[in-house]
Amino acid sequence: MVAEGSRTLKRAEVEALVREVLTARLRGEQPPASRERHAAAPRTPGGPPNPLVVNVSARHMHVTPEHLEVLFGKGAKLTKLKDLYQQGEFASEQRVTIVGPRQRIIPDVRILGPTRNYTQIELSYTDGVYLGLDLPLRISGNHEDTPGCTIMGPKGALTIDKGVIRAERHVHMSNDDMAYYGVKDGDYLKLKIDGPCGLLFDRVKVRFHPKVVLEVHIDTDEGNACDLESATHMELIK
Amino acid sequence: MVAEGSRTLKRAEVEALVREVLTARLRGEQPPASRERHAAAPRTPGGPPNPLVVNVSARHMHVTPEHLEVLFGKGAKLTKLKDLYQQGEFASEQRVTIVGPRQRIIPDVRILGPTRNYTQIELSYTDGVYLGLDLPLRISGNHEDTPGCTIMGPKGALTIDKGVIRAERHVHMSNDDMAYYGVKDGDYLKLKIDGPCGLLFDRVKVRFHPKVVLEVHIDTDEGNACDLESATHMELIK
Repeated sequence: MVAEGSRTLKRAEVEALVREVLTARLRGEQPPASRERHAAAPRTPGGPPNPLVVNVSARHMHVTPEHLEVLFGKGAKLTKLKDLYQQGEFASEQRVTIVGPRQRIIPDVRILGPTRNYTQIELSYTDGVYLGLDLPLRISGNHEDTPGCTIMGPKGALTIDKGVIRAERHVHMSNDDMAYYGVKDGDYLKLKIDGPCGLLFDRVKVRFHPKVVLEVHIDTDEGNACDLESATHMELIK
Repeated sequence: MVAEGSRTLKRAEVEALVREVLTARLRGEQPPASRERHAAAPRTPGGPPNPLVVNVSARHMHVTPEHLEVLFGKGAKLTKLKDLYQQGEFASEQRVTIVGPRQRIIPDVRILGPTRNYTQIELSYTDGVYLGLDLPLRISGNHEDTPGCTIMGPKGALTIDKGVIRAERHVHMSNDDMAYYGVKDGDYLKLKIDGPCGLLFDRVKVRFHPKVVLEVHIDTDEGNACDLESATHMELIK
């Protein structure tokens, strides 16, 4: 499924792009940044079994152990920068540069750990427009009819021919949460965000795992559209 | 209210930034792009007096005649690239580069015409995060407690000390529209967008003018959050 090496980019082009990334990094620049934001609704007596946490997923990458070695060198492992809200998941110290079809780049895209059995890049639509990618809306791991891209790491580059997506809004739920909200895996809920940029997100997909903690994931476009930072109240609605 | 010249930037810094912009333009690059999108709901018999049009406002600038001359030279006038949906308003051929407090830049920001009695930059929150500006949510022309920025044109630069905003979602209405929806100037409506990224925007502010055509304006974060391009149905709700 994956074509490694410089299939779509000539060596001189890659060198030029690397120079550009290094120059940008030396200047301390980076493209369309994103605020990581997090808002937890207070728990009320007789209310939901777990507090509602809404997190904005900034653009990121998931990677197979094999691709990690292509990008970061033989024997490379992900090292932890900080824990994420879901136990065992973490933001790694490893970052890559994404190259789109118009050879525009987004540097400093963080890899989330641990490694997975697929490589995937999750971007916002704003990122997609910038790179020239018409991103499909997908749940993680569903790569049917998704575009690829070139990924550059400090020790090598690779081109994937699929796996670049906009993540579909979703909520991680355990059995307790699904029982409380009266839903099952794959159902949709609505997420109400009150505040100066308030809105009601339709189609927040329920994703079940017995060991997850209740958490909604939206992307930076969605987080900025509702200005999650300034939210005064948040609620999941059937 | 406006300090012209290089108040916050030294000459060498401006020169370096100009070089950077020119280099980027020669490479055909530009930062976080935005799709201009437009969706009109079909009119139904007995329904609203005017078709519902929702437009995404990409980042843009409004300018006074005096500032236009600073940026584009003595005697400069805005020239029309294309008409906008509101009669008499147009996207001009003139574009400027915005410099934020971290000296990151966004080039190719289009000026909308005709000229106004204030200078204003409208950006998305994604743009604000990139530039390092904490954008206030404002209706056009309300510049109280808003940040400024430096603006570069081909013939000169100026620094405004206020006028950079995120535009509050709004709907332009004439008397017929306000009567149909049962609202008055300054009231809020909700905007329902159905589709794969469907959502319901709260707090869409009614802005009355006797000669406008019915039109909702949202920004690129909001347009991308709901993927307006793929909307299957749109509706204003009281």
